[in-house]
Amino acid sequence: MSNGAARTDTRIQHIDGGITAPAGFRAAGVYAGIKPKTHAWPLDVMLMTAERPVSAAAVFTTNKTIAAPVVVSRDNLAKSGGRARAIVCNSGCANACTGDAGMQVSRSTVAFVADMLGCRPEEVLVASTGVIGVDLDLSKVKSGVTAAAPLLSRDGHHNAMLAIMTTDPFPKEVAVKVDTAAGTFHVGGMTKGSGMIEPMMATMLGFMTCDAEVEPAVLRKALSAVVRDTFNAITVDGECSTNDTVFVLASGESGVVIDESLYPALEDGLRAVAKELAIAIVRGGEGATKLVTVRVTGAREWAHAERAARTIANSLLVKTAVHGGDPNWGRLVAAAGRSGVPFDQSRAAVHIGGIVLFEQGQPHDANAGKAAAHLSGKDIDIEVDLGTGGSEQATIWTCDLSAEYVKINADYRT
Amino acid sequence: MSNGAARTDTRIQHIDGGITAPAGFRAAGVYAGIKPKTHAWPLDVMLMTAERPVSAAAVFTTNKTIAAPVVVSRDNLAKSGGRARAIVCNSGCANACTGDAGMQVSRSTVAFVADMLGCRPEEVLVASTGVIGVDLDLSKVKSGVTAAAPLLSRDGHHNAMLAIMTTDPFPKEVAVKVDTAAGTFHVGGMTKGSGMIEPMMATMLGFMTCDAEVEPAVLRKALSAVVRDTFNAITVDGECSTNDTVFVLASGESGVVIDESLYPALEDGLRAVAKELAIAIVRGGEGATKLVTVRVTGAREWAHAERAARTIANSLLVKTAVHGGDPNWGRLVAAAGRSGVPFDQSRAAVHIGGIVLFEQGQPHDANAGKAAAHLSGKDIDIEVDLGTGGSEQATIWTCDLSAEYVKINADYRT
Repeated sequence: MSNGAARTDTRIQHIDGGITAPAGFRAAGVYAGIKPKTHAWPLDVMLMTAERPVSAAAVFTTNKTIAAPVVVSRDNLAKSGGRARAIVCNSGCANACTGDAGMQVSRSTVAFVADMLGCRPEEVLVASTGVIGVDLDLSKVKSGVTAAAPLLSRDGHHNAMLAIMTTDPFPKEVAVKVDTAAGTFHVGGMTKGSGMIEPMMATMLGFMTCDAEVEPAVLRKALSAVVRDTFNAITVDGECSTNDTVFVLASGESGVVIDESLYPALEDGLRAVAKELAIAIVRGGEGATKLVTVRVTGAREWAHAERAARTIANSLLVKTAVHGGDPNWGRLVAAAGRSGVPFDQSRAAVHIGGIVLFEQGQPHDANAGKAAAHLSGKDIDIEVDLGTGGSEQATIWTCDLSAEYVKINADYRT
Repeated sequence: MSNGAARTDTRIQHIDGGITAPAGFRAAGVYAGIKPKTHAWPLDVMLMTAERPVSAAAVFTTNKTIAAPVVVSRDNLAKSGGRARAIVCNSGCANACTGDAGMQVSRSTVAFVADMLGCRPEEVLVASTGVIGVDLDLSKVKSGVTAAAPLLSRDGHHNAMLAIMTTDPFPKEVAVKVDTAAGTFHVGGMTKGSGMIEPMMATMLGFMTCDAEVEPAVLRKALSAVVRDTFNAITVDGECSTNDTVFVLASGESGVVIDESLYPALEDGLRAVAKELAIAIVRGGEGATKLVTVRVTGAREWAHAERAARTIANSLLVKTAVHGGDPNWGRLVAAAGRSGVPFDQSRAAVHIGGIVLFEQGQPHDANAGKAAAHLSGKDIDIEVDLGTGGSEQATIWTCDLSAEYVKINADYRT
């Protein structure tokens, strides 16, 4: 993905904080009455700003049912040429499948924030998460924004994060400092994962910030590379929502300028934050009791490894076997076999927790006990070699499937 | 799919029996010690024969992990040019992922039956269902075949069916008579569905018989068309096993010769039986409490409708919403949107039980109560119009997802 030169000089360390850890960003979260007051995470409007319009990039849902805020943010980024001054986000209502009225709410929100900050509307990005098919109350969003503005601060990251959560079992924020030969910059981020109390979609939202100086096109490239291996490499239930969005803003305040030699450090920094956030989403998946790392090796093409890993990670029989602590290599071989990629069962191999259970067409059932012991833990490693002799590999993170998942999602909305 | 001419003269009526209802077939089922004696359906070796080698066709799993009996049956059909004298099937062991030894067991089984019947080995087809990765005991299969041979009869259909069952909650067999202008012929069938007590794969096996006279190539064509709309149009959990197989044999004993004008009657007869068997598999799906018919309309191509219907039918959020009786049209719109086919949310529509819940980009939430009442029943109808103005449509049958499914499949094998 990059040569080792820059990487050797790069050191990444965790620091406190979240999206306001990089210089040049402030954030706030408030309660504006969009969620019920009894919600476990009662804040519902998040505002984050940069000192001035900064480089911005985003990745959006591939679902053809697209929520209004996704349409508006995509248009704004195109219009501004990848610059943004602020992001506004509400939880409690996804503003999806809400027709022209919903579009109007997202556009008015953007205009309201732009007016307040004295920037152009296309420099404001917007996101929503929560119930589908319910109208978002513009007046509540506006009063939330008005209340949040005076609270904007470098310490606002935590309230900002609380304001984007729905049924997430725990908050998810990360920050790192990236030491390079050319100086130090910072990356911060927060995310919300799958979960829905009232209904609905497991919307995934990710917000990242960085204080390196990066051209918008370079930031786009880095985000796209990083999302492939992190936010796009997780699955809870194979669903992709109408609102999924990952944003990144780069303020340049650290004075570190990302040129060709520092590009790997940028990718590494963003990846460190994105990977931790993405894995936290899986750990907090609905009903999840275990984090499962599915690694597929021995592929001739990365896309083959990725597809096989995704098929295994989404297999209900695999997820229930992991939940039950059953070292059921047969389900792994069968899932790889039906994934549609080249697969040679006579040369394939299956390891669980590093313990071989199937190799060269032969079971190793004497090892089942040791593998079952690994499966009784919280962090499960599954590795499947496709047996096609290639050197490409891919990793997908998922969780087990519990009866609790069914209970959460079968609950009637009212 | 066919012109109406022949169909107008065709009348299809249910009759008693299963695979031995068509003339020219005998069957038996016995217990040979492959399953534990305590199994709910204790028979485990099935033998069915035709009076002489007859036309035969099959459809096999598309999984690249292929069980030994599938390899052997496929080879035999190719070698015999689509003729078969007998089918032998065991339950309790899938003979999958068993290497060269497993291939030898399936080949020896075929040779043993051929020797006994005085036919060529390639005129014997073989199938297995049950645990993956466990060796199949050839001596038990042979003793089963020896015990079954003297029991072969026109009344043997029911024991034959019991001998192919694993954790199926109920037996599944159907027979019809097809009255045509050229005379009457019969179609019979039996199937086993998803389920695994000890582990493992949800193997789907289907056996059909027919006493019309049909050329092997015509029988193949008819089977392929029928399977597309029946056995391949169901899903319990999106899994496709290493052993999935559908066989059809045609004895010609009725004297009705299938020519071009009678071909639609053959397809209709096979479809009537296959559809009923396929739907019975879904009704008997693991943990299933409801049969869900997902119909997607308004597609420009059949493949689009099929893919969207399959995505909806496999969506965990849709399946849990149905289980919980929640008329959650948002999950349906989102699943259709992520299926990757052309979809226009501003012109799409969602009906549950014939009740409109979403149309022209607008929710009809006043109807939620009526739709919830429909969802409280056992037979659920979901219809999604993709809104692309096409006239193609497809139907997929599935079941709801219950906590019981998780319990069944998370149980450790030992």
